[in-house]
Amino acid sequence: MSDVYLHDIPLEEAQQRMEKALRDAGRLGVLGIEEIPLDEHALGRVLAEPVQALISSPHYHASAMDGFAVRAEDTEDAELNNPVVLKVRPPLGAQDVQEPPAADGKEEAGWAYYVDTGDPVPLWADAVIPIENVEPLDEQGGISAQARRPAAIRIRAAVPPWSHIRPIGEDMVATQLVLPAGHKLRPVDLGAIAGCGHSTVRVAKRPRVAILPTGTELVPVGQPVRPGDIIEYNSLVLAAQVISWGGQADRFPITPDVFEQIRDRVAEAARDHDLVLLNAGSSAGSEDFSARVVSSLGELLVHGVAVRPGHPVILGMIHSPCDGDPQRKVPVIGVPGYPVSAALTAEIFVQPLLARWLGLPEQEDETVVAQLTRKVTSPAGDVDYLRVAVGQVGDKLLAAPLSRGSGVITSLVRADGIAILPAGVQGLPAGAPVEVHLYRSRADLKRTIFAIGSHDITLDLMAQRLAVHGRRLASANVGSQGGLVALRRGEAHLAGSHLLDPESGEYNLTYIRQYLPDTPVRVVSLVGREQGLLVPRGNPKGIRSIEDLVRPDVTFVNRQRGAGTRVLLDYHLGLLGMDPRQVRGYEREEYTHLAVAAAVSSGRADTGLGIAAAAQALDLDFVPLFQERYDLVIPVEYYSSDLLAPLLELLHDPEFREAVAALPGYDVSQMGNVVV
Amino acid sequence: MSDVYLHDIPLEEAQQRMEKALRDAGRLGVLGIEEIPLDEHALGRVLAEPVQALISSPHYHASAMDGFAVRAEDTEDAELNNPVVLKVRPPLGAQDVQEPPAADGKEEAGWAYYVDTGDPVPLWADAVIPIENVEPLDEQGGISAQARRPAAIRIRAAVPPWSHIRPIGEDMVATQLVLPAGHKLRPVDLGAIAGCGHSTVRVAKRPRVAILPTGTELVPVGQPVRPGDIIEYNSLVLAAQVISWGGQADRFPITPDVFEQIRDRVAEAARDHDLVLLNAGSSAGSEDFSARVVSSLGELLVHGVAVRPGHPVILGMIHSPCDGDPQRKVPVIGVPGYPVSAALTAEIFVQPLLARWLGLPEQEDETVVAQLTRKVTSPAGDVDYLRVAVGQVGDKLLAAPLSRGSGVITSLVRADGIAILPAGVQGLPAGAPVEVHLYRSRADLKRTIFAIGSHDITLDLMAQRLAVHGRRLASANVGSQGGLVALRRGEAHLAGSHLLDPESGEYNLTYIRQYLPDTPVRVVSLVGREQGLLVPRGNPKGIRSIEDLVRPDVTFVNRQRGAGTRVLLDYHLGLLGMDPRQVRGYEREEYTHLAVAAAVSSGRADTGLGIAAAAQALDLDFVPLFQERYDLVIPVEYYSSDLLAPLLELLHDPEFREAVAALPGYDVSQMGNVVV
Repeated sequence: MSDVYLHDIPLEEAQQRMEKALRDAGRLGVLGIEEIPLDEHALGRVLAEPVQALISSPHYHASAMDGFAVRAEDTEDAELNNPVVLKVRPPLGAQDVQEPPAADGKEEAGWAYYVDTGDPVPLWADAVIPIENVEPLDEQGGISAQARRPAAIRIRAAVPPWSHIRPIGEDMVATQLVLPAGHKLRPVDLGAIAGCGHSTVRVAKRPRVAILPTGTELVPVGQPVRPGDIIEYNSLVLAAQVISWGGQADRFPITPDVFEQIRDRVAEAARDHDLVLLNAGSSAGSEDFSARVVSSLGELLVHGVAVRPGHPVILGMIHSPCDGDPQRKVPVIGVPGYPVSAALTAEIFVQPLLARWLGLPEQEDETVVAQLTRKVTSPAGDVDYLRVAVGQVGDKLLAAPLSRGSGVITSLVRADGIAILPAGVQGLPAGAPVEVHLYRSRADLKRTIFAIGSHDITLDLMAQRLAVHGRRLASANVGSQGGLVALRRGEAHLAGSHLLDPESGEYNLTYIRQYLPDTPVRVVSLVGREQGLLVPRGNPKGIRSIEDLVRPDVTFVNRQRGAGTRVLLDYHLGLLGMDPRQVRGYEREEYTHLAVAAAVSSGRADTGLGIAAAAQALDLDFVPLFQERYDLVIPVEYYSSDLLAPLLELLHDPEFREAVAALPGYDVSQMGNVVV
Repeated sequence: MSDVYLHDIPLEEAQQRMEKALRDAGRLGVLGIEEIPLDEHALGRVLAEPVQALISSPHYHASAMDGFAVRAEDTEDAELNNPVVLKVRPPLGAQDVQEPPAADGKEEAGWAYYVDTGDPVPLWADAVIPIENVEPLDEQGGISAQARRPAAIRIRAAVPPWSHIRPIGEDMVATQLVLPAGHKLRPVDLGAIAGCGHSTVRVAKRPRVAILPTGTELVPVGQPVRPGDIIEYNSLVLAAQVISWGGQADRFPITPDVFEQIRDRVAEAARDHDLVLLNAGSSAGSEDFSARVVSSLGELLVHGVAVRPGHPVILGMIHSPCDGDPQRKVPVIGVPGYPVSAALTAEIFVQPLLARWLGLPEQEDETVVAQLTRKVTSPAGDVDYLRVAVGQVGDKLLAAPLSRGSGVITSLVRADGIAILPAGVQGLPAGAPVEVHLYRSRADLKRTIFAIGSHDITLDLMAQRLAVHGRRLASANVGSQGGLVALRRGEAHLAGSHLLDPESGEYNLTYIRQYLPDTPVRVVSLVGREQGLLVPRGNPKGIRSIEDLVRPDVTFVNRQRGAGTRVLLDYHLGLLGMDPRQVRGYEREEYTHLAVAAAVSSGRADTGLGIAAAAQALDLDFVPLFQERYDLVIPVEYYSSDLLAPLLELLHDPEFREAVAALPGYDVSQMGNVVV
């Protein structure tokens, strides 16, 4: 049972088992049809049956212009210098319009009849002459002031039959197929359906999905949290996913880890839902009740699927007889508790199921092939869902892998797509092509500025402002040197860098010459900023200087190799003749200033080198030590591109400069200066 | 006023005038901010402010596994043959977890503490060993049955610090920017916002849009119609568009063409809406009140824009003072009455306005460059919105222009995108590249079967069934010969053809040899079908044969040149030695069987040659004359493609064959036979 560790089966097999069980239970197609009024609430619903035109559109011969309905043959002789005069027939009401021409058609010859755009053309007429092409005449043959109600009209050109008439059925002919079943209704579809005579529409019933969060450690959104408490938001994400895929979602209250309570709630939820999502409790830990619950209520089909993240998925069918259907079965999906696993499990198992229940056609994702910016390893045997940021840099479409942690929901927030590494692929080198299933449009990718390098809080402010100007700033934090390497490989539009040359005391230029000998770049100052030691409020250990870092009672948290802050530390350790090995925690690396601050804030370390803003963000004290310059390094080919223009303009925007200057330890006096 | 024909101004100028007026009125940015609960209803709303993390996530050091929290340094000496034993500390409650290590750290050395996944790691510990990597021991040093509650654990490998721990802020660090303003909330975003401590979210207020249909000729959806009645569905399309763009839509009842009534209703609607859409009444016809209404209530900015369709657009700002804002102004857009014009006007003017009011970033459409399949002409000076079907045939991305009629809503329903021909372009030849703004994903285009040629009702049934199998069948009706020409140019995956060779009496093969000498094709029989004369119910004129077509009291409606039915007629006219010029209406061409049937049904013609199904569809009588074969001509390169596989399978699907056989005059005995 829960102590037996789950045995992952291949994804395809899991899908097949589920499909077979659904087919056996008669639950594979559209769940039901409902007839709803044809109004704006029908938007997004899925047609359960094809729509055929009840009436033609137009349903009568309609004038396409304001003008005079005539018989084309009466105009045959009209020429510029040989005008034809047609008497205007007075309006006689609808009857006139519908009547067939009189038995001796001749009596009607030589008539014209005023019609507005959209008016029916009398049956005796077969053409319309636009009002601007006739001369209105009065009884005496002079020009009439009554453009629309003259006694007669004079025309100086023949008109071909059916000109300026929208014939019956121009748009839709009665009985014609207008839209197929399985079509998701868009605004114009509603118009077409109304236009061919329908006032209701038969659509697939919305699948009803129950979402049951379980776990004693969970607390609802909005409550204060203590260590060990987990904010329950998976049900929120799942509900929103279900809604966006066309289902109805009901979120249940949190059920604690009590077998009977979970079982009873699942049974209850199954009664009036088509699918039960049982969240959490599917890891091998002590909360693992889902599999037992499913087994006790029906059949456990799958416990563990070879996908990462998300492998502890449970699939089952439970019995939920009802009056009309004593054999009724309801599928249950045990969704893993980690947020990324939960969201991806829903994409893999819930979305296709809802699509089938709605009768939607199989959908292929939008995909692109992109180059990995760094190597990845992948668990053998698992299908691996790698979240990536995607950007177009020059000719290259790049995929930068994001955090792999299944608890890191921001990896999905930041993801532009998913690269699915098939089972059997154990890893891929940097530069390898991967197929990315896109979450965004390609147009979105084209307006993405790909920044790889050192991170600075200013970049967040920048991203915020650029969003308004139609640019996305995707930044990967790999440190200053990593950024220059990315530029050399043509894998970024710009790199943030604050690399001190220990020889010259100059920032960045030495390194640029070294790393980018063949890439012409501009270097633009972003900010001057203070670096110093981050310490807990009140500085309990009295840390004042670099020398204090070798004290035996002091533990340090470092930045990663290649980070400008790391170079700065090494420079000063060198100046002081200190051995890095004397610094306890020197080998512990974090990738951002905020992560260093978090380490200090949590007590994991006593201090770290970083910027004042990071200290302020986490309510730490700051021991200022050095002033440094943080520049943007931009290859010349992007410097003058449309893509980057809003970013460069931003550096001269007083509001933005003010917002940056307000950050503690920031100096904007050189912002926007072109260094080289 | 309304008699003065409108003067179209360039689109860009119209947009600028509107923007200036909105800016002057202080109505260009986000209209307001509201704080809403963070639940699934927040989906799709747009952030009015950036979201910053209130708390870190995780907000404590969390175990990433079920296992034992330890100090890494206590495990340093463990090796396979040199195990280390750590005593298990009993659970002491939350206090234990939060307490700092005792003053003399040594006392705590050598301890382990059981944690479930997600549990806080005690502050004295800095690593977790997964439960499967330890040997649980009992008091006596034997293996314990209590895997999670042993007296001690034995380990045979050292663990590095921080292994299997999710440190504070791994996902989000307090104060960090999580999402920028102007971001439209997706399911995972809701999770991230909840995970960093929010329970509400501040979003842009939904713009409130009033939609006022006007026109005495309009009747609401669902009412019986008489000639001259127009089913009012523009307000439905506009409302659905507004909703899909993030606004709130209120549809008003139809207002008749009475100046005072329209004026009063606009004034009323402006009071509690941010935008008034005044539909119809903006052509130059007798219903033209919109401009006068706008002038009477405020300022008319634009009357007529150089775009097709949609040029009679009206833009204005009206005064609508309220308690808090005596200067309040509300924009009014006069939307043209033709359905295509109305929908495109909304895309051009309403969508960007709503986007600004919601604070959404400028969006670029997804575009592709495709080749026109036929030449188009375009009005000089106008920006021309050409609806196109888009399909990928081999290497070619093709854009087939759809109906240009602004009353043809199905042209928008069928459109895969819009080719915008700039003002100044007076037309483009076949094969010209055009930039298409896509309504569909590229993935959709890849699953589109592009059929150009003769139309048969079976193709509609086929389209319907293929939709379920993930294929779209886009068919352009250009007649049998037109289809073969399209295949020669590589512009279709298949062509429907029923071309009789007058010499051999054989179908299609002669023409294929002639039109496609260098293109290897398969010819697959689709159906045998009866062709005959379509006549009104009861056959009032007693039409029995081709010979009757030259009777002076009989008017005929023909099919277009190149249509198989036209070839059939010409063949039999030739056999009988009849002169086509004797047939009244021979020159009047329709493009489909249904259009011919509609012409007969409406009394526009007495008869036409066509198929029995078309007669039945429009409740006509049918005089059967000939039996003919309708084939699918498929280039070999597509015949065995994945794309076409579902279509070829369908020909052997008993259900499909039965559905076709049920059509009057259809014979499916040869369906699926490969002729060559």
